[in-house]
Amino acid sequence: MTRITANEFSGATFRPQQFVQSERQNSKLNIEQLNLFLESSPENAKLTHDLITQVTTDPVLKTGSDYYDLDKAQHRRATALKIAKMALYMEEDIQMAFKKYRNHDVVKGLQTDEKYPILTAKDLGIFDKRLSIISNQDPQLGTRIGVHLGLFGNCIRGNGTDEQIRYWLQEKGALFLKGIYGCFAMTELGHGSNVAQLQTRAIYDPKTESFVVNTPDLPATKWWIGGAAHSATHATVYARLIVEGKDYGVKTFVVPLRDPETFQLLAGVFIGDIGTKMGRDGIDNGWIQFQNVVIPREYMLSRYTKIVHSGSGVRVATEPTLDQISGYSALLNGRVNMVMDSFRFGSKFVTIAVRYAVGRQQFAADNDKSGNAPETQLINYPLHQYRVLPHLAIVYLISPVAFKLMDTYHSTLDELYKVSSAGDKGQLKLVSMKLKDLFIDSASLKATNTWLVAAVIDELRQACGGHGYSAYNGFGKGYNDWVVQCTWEGDNNILSLTSARSILKKYADLAKGKVQETESFRYLSPELVMAVLRGTKAAKLDTPKDYFEVWGIMLIKMLHFCAKLVKETKSADSISKHLVLISRFHAFHSMLRAFYLKLKSPSDSHVSDESSQEVLWKLYRLFSLYFIDKHSGEFQQFKVFTPDQISTLVQPKLMALLPEIRKECIALTDAFKLPDAMLNAPIGYYDGDIYNNYYNEVLKNNPPEADGPGKPEYHQCLTTMLRRGFQGTENLAKLGK
Amino acid sequence: MTRITANEFSGATFRPQQFVQSERQNSKLNIEQLNLFLESSPENAKLTHDLITQVTTDPVLKTGSDYYDLDKAQHRRATALKIAKMALYMEEDIQMAFKKYRNHDVVKGLQTDEKYPILTAKDLGIFDKRLSIISNQDPQLGTRIGVHLGLFGNCIRGNGTDEQIRYWLQEKGALFLKGIYGCFAMTELGHGSNVAQLQTRAIYDPKTESFVVNTPDLPATKWWIGGAAHSATHATVYARLIVEGKDYGVKTFVVPLRDPETFQLLAGVFIGDIGTKMGRDGIDNGWIQFQNVVIPREYMLSRYTKIVHSGSGVRVATEPTLDQISGYSALLNGRVNMVMDSFRFGSKFVTIAVRYAVGRQQFAADNDKSGNAPETQLINYPLHQYRVLPHLAIVYLISPVAFKLMDTYHSTLDELYKVSSAGDKGQLKLVSMKLKDLFIDSASLKATNTWLVAAVIDELRQACGGHGYSAYNGFGKGYNDWVVQCTWEGDNNILSLTSARSILKKYADLAKGKVQETESFRYLSPELVMAVLRGTKAAKLDTPKDYFEVWGIMLIKMLHFCAKLVKETKSADSISKHLVLISRFHAFHSMLRAFYLKLKSPSDSHVSDESSQEVLWKLYRLFSLYFIDKHSGEFQQFKVFTPDQISTLVQPKLMALLPEIRKECIALTDAFKLPDAMLNAPIGYYDGDIYNNYYNEVLKNNPPEADGPGKPEYHQCLTTMLRRGFQGTENLAKLGK
Repeated sequence: MTRITANEFSGATFRPQQFVQSERQNSKLNIEQLNLFLESSPENAKLTHDLITQVTTDPVLKTGSDYYDLDKAQHRRATALKIAKMALYMEEDIQMAFKKYRNHDVVKGLQTDEKYPILTAKDLGIFDKRLSIISNQDPQLGTRIGVHLGLFGNCIRGNGTDEQIRYWLQEKGALFLKGIYGCFAMTELGHGSNVAQLQTRAIYDPKTESFVVNTPDLPATKWWIGGAAHSATHATVYARLIVEGKDYGVKTFVVPLRDPETFQLLAGVFIGDIGTKMGRDGIDNGWIQFQNVVIPREYMLSRYTKIVHSGSGVRVATEPTLDQISGYSALLNGRVNMVMDSFRFGSKFVTIAVRYAVGRQQFAADNDKSGNAPETQLINYPLHQYRVLPHLAIVYLISPVAFKLMDTYHSTLDELYKVSSAGDKGQLKLVSMKLKDLFIDSASLKATNTWLVAAVIDELRQACGGHGYSAYNGFGKGYNDWVVQCTWEGDNNILSLTSARSILKKYADLAKGKVQETESFRYLSPELVMAVLRGTKAAKLDTPKDYFEVWGIMLIKMLHFCAKLVKETKSADSISKHLVLISRFHAFHSMLRAFYLKLKSPSDSHVSDESSQEVLWKLYRLFSLYFIDKHSGEFQQFKVFTPDQISTLVQPKLMALLPEIRKECIALTDAFKLPDAMLNAPIGYYDGDIYNNYYNEVLKNNPPEADGPGKPEYHQCLTTMLRRGFQGTENLAKLGK
Repeated sequence: MTRITANEFSGATFRPQQFVQSERQNSKLNIEQLNLFLESSPENAKLTHDLITQVTTDPVLKTGSDYYDLDKAQHRRATALKIAKMALYMEEDIQMAFKKYRNHDVVKGLQTDEKYPILTAKDLGIFDKRLSIISNQDPQLGTRIGVHLGLFGNCIRGNGTDEQIRYWLQEKGALFLKGIYGCFAMTELGHGSNVAQLQTRAIYDPKTESFVVNTPDLPATKWWIGGAAHSATHATVYARLIVEGKDYGVKTFVVPLRDPETFQLLAGVFIGDIGTKMGRDGIDNGWIQFQNVVIPREYMLSRYTKIVHSGSGVRVATEPTLDQISGYSALLNGRVNMVMDSFRFGSKFVTIAVRYAVGRQQFAADNDKSGNAPETQLINYPLHQYRVLPHLAIVYLISPVAFKLMDTYHSTLDELYKVSSAGDKGQLKLVSMKLKDLFIDSASLKATNTWLVAAVIDELRQACGGHGYSAYNGFGKGYNDWVVQCTWEGDNNILSLTSARSILKKYADLAKGKVQETESFRYLSPELVMAVLRGTKAAKLDTPKDYFEVWGIMLIKMLHFCAKLVKETKSADSISKHLVLISRFHAFHSMLRAFYLKLKSPSDSHVSDESSQEVLWKLYRLFSLYFIDKHSGEFQQFKVFTPDQISTLVQPKLMALLPEIRKECIALTDAFKLPDAMLNAPIGYYDGDIYNNYYNEVLKNNPPEADGPGKPEYHQCLTTMLRRGFQGTENLAKLGK
């Protein structure tokens, strides 16, 4: 029995399709312009659209609802097949970037001809975007390629000499998903965030000019290494450099793991599978132990640290300014990408939950006494608006800052590469300062946005009721895949603490007359700080600008409070709970400011349509108000707002915006332009036909048994149980005593 | 290669075992007394201990780390085998409850002899506890039996006549997991919370004295029905009773689904599998469609609604006071159990995370400049204490209220059963009032505590870093299994709204002179309300009592605010966001008050040891302070505390308690007395040997490949990719134009 259609039936009727469609008919918004705003430019928007079409239709790459039923082994196999297909697309993407198609093999040139340039991040831009987009439908695939290109590749790019970069990434072919496949062996069983204390050792032997790599004890086992269990042929290994008995701290080395022809493990390399995880089981995370693995001296990545043989002696030469920071630079790429992921992944779940909220009906309105009125659409309940619409605002607010951060990352890293190749010390110092600000911003934005999106998925799943718990509507796997982003490549709490400590230091520097010139710290201008502390600058919510400035005021007051507390207690530990909030508020300020500047500039925003501009301003205000209200404890405690202002200003403004945005909620999610194949969640499909779509996907993946009766293979253990007799003791007298 | 032990190694050393052990040596607490406090009485504590031992050692029932690697089909089969084993334990448990072992078969008597009494909830008390405890290690098993006994069984018990109860539950054997197996067919694809609008129909045919059950359209398909896909032989079906064209609303019916001998589906019954879910895949949730399924009139559950044939006419007689409430009473049992589950499930994850925090080291202390100091234990960081220890307080605070709610539930339901059997109208009204309060309390406590424990699991997983993301440490499946508790058997938001609306109504009744006598609403005494509103009663935190009373003051102020707003706006919708908080705060008040009363009474608390008493008071204060701080927005907005009180009173008290409780955190988790086999998470095992335990479980479940090389079966698709040539176009000239 498939769909039931009983024409004579006069009971409750549901019209989810009509509800969703009528929202579209009544919308005043310009979807195209909103999409340009979200995708940052017409070129980007077109590329995004083309890539989405390709990855959702390619028969190897596409991801259907059967995806939710795969077991670990099936996920791993499917991911490997997809990697191989992505490799083919990569060559095209590089040709596209070079705009050379005819009579020319760009990849061959890059791989075999030394006259070709070293590839920049920009040259890989199209493929990076493809990867980012496909991660949205299959996050584990994104990680598995991302570990190779983003972590293994960027570790070499950030720490290797030009020759090493060319050798490993181009000549060997790594950048083209060719020749070798890399993994990133940083974390150990006993050490995660504290990279400086990693215990794997690389002891230099001057006679043979080689390193001996060893895992000294169990906790030093490399652990969680994505790709190690089955796919990687090489690893960038973080290990202590030990030369003539002296420990120079943790450096990076390329260590071969498997023969790329046969995939057999090399001598001295012991590898196992980490096994099942909360999510992303398509990634073959593994553990690695090294026993006297010998690698040539040339395999140490030597951009900032070199082994120098002079006469009979050996010494280690380092570039102190950048040696340490470069060790972490491989992680920067991931953090920047995770902010973009937050936008894309969040947009998926907001689309699903908004469409469901418009199509689903539940209970009659409060004022219906007849009992016959049609049930109310979920989205028309103020509580449901409060549960869903702020998440829409969150996703809109992530986009501008994500694109801005990506641009800053690319320009700063390009600059660093050029300056360090040229060896210009003065310029190096300038770039390293920019790099530090990039660390602060990316850390605070990574932590804040990955946490926000975890809450987005979790709360929107609940807003879809029981159907949100079905695997086929995507929330379960989505959440399980997502939340590791809060932990890996910089634990969110650690990132928040380190970025907030740097912000606190910048605040302290103000007193010493150091002015912050950088974009992200405009709120630390001496004028504003003085005005806030003197009480001549009060928070208000009159003009659009006020909505981001209020977070600057909040930050100044909290920083002032924390600086005082640290002075009194002589310990930064006592304020760690506040520091986490400072990092979060800094991110909110950056997000609001980036959105504000973009929307104010017609050439940046690409939005000329007035209704569309207006609704974007509403989302902007909603984001700020929602979080002022969520953090009204701090806003009152630090006297940015009075209790009465919360009751009469903030909350009424917040609640008044919800029904306004509700009117355009379908158009606002349509503007993400996510096809059903990307959503992969039938209760959120475009046509709004919730019940038929959902029912069909469930039946497709769970067809009733061929022999009809719905008997489980284990039914005998149940029938035996149901048929059993009694087990008590009766008529013992018969036995005598 | 298994463990590496290099004696000569002098690098960082980890001593997780010693850390955990030394906490035990330094503890002043009396673990036994704390355990009695948590388990409510010596008898209960002994029973709990015995049951835990049995379910963790029985080879069919025990759950090892291989559990995390089972796929859906394996989970379902394993669950069925466990059900069959539990059925055998059940007969013993009933004999134990009746204290009749010799020369007697209690179960046979109950099943076959009408002189035997109808079983009460108390008679099943031991088995219920067994089920509650085994749910802690395998939640899906708990559900699969719970649906049969708790939902199917209680639906019959709450809505059936004495004859129907005896017939289905005893004579047929359902209560003994015999003869028939039930499911609970309430929700439909299109209707969840709005039970009154369910669309399945049971049309009465007076001539044949039978009902015809039909599913009129697709959204009326019974959906999410646990046990329906493969195990249930019978269902209690919620369907509209239609007699002579008149719709009497939703009533309950027993409908056979499968032949219990052969498990074949009966005519007109169409069933399918709902498929994969976010968690609990061991439950065979299914969908059911009925096409003209005929059942005899006796299968309608008729305690409060009867079909009466009189002469040539037919009428429907109902008991209006209880007809509606009884429809929902089957859900009460689940809600009460979920509060107990919250205590037990939460205690597991708190134990794991606290032991890990004590054993795990990370970074050196702030004041170490040498770089050689051993790394600091996570638990010694104030931020980590703040992230972990309040969750310990939460779990401790759930226990007293959970036991109290369970007692109230049993006594109220017993009373209802007696009074309704006797047909005493006056008494019925009294009991129905008690039942209403039980609805309010259980709704607010179910919603609040299932949400709290979802946050406990999620935040503690993050506090265990990357290792928290491994399936083998339990957080992933734990979270996925848990969160459905926030949605099923009453969506948390809906439950919060309905309970808060009732509380608001009680507040409004005060003005009309109605005084609340019931235990849970002591804060609604006219004296307190007047004093708070007049400003003569201010919040303080001096004596222990203040720590729960402050929540009463908060509630009164919020209720006052909401009542005013509803009056002004004429709509309860505008305050729905506040209502959710009122329900939450009501639960906090109940939890604190129950804990306070228990701890104050030596005979109830079973704690005579002073250090143990003291630490319990600290947990009590921590719980209250943690949530005052979390909700400091409301506390300031409603002027319970001033901004300065938050800074100088609440937060310093909160932060000062953390290092105090930290000193006893291992003993406080040991007091839960959870064996490793119940924790099933190697980073949390008793001996604290984190790294060896975790490594061993990973290796046990992922043994390195027998042929050594670690080659995946899909390696060829990778080698083919890595070996591939170039795909660009070269030397086109050769082809001519």
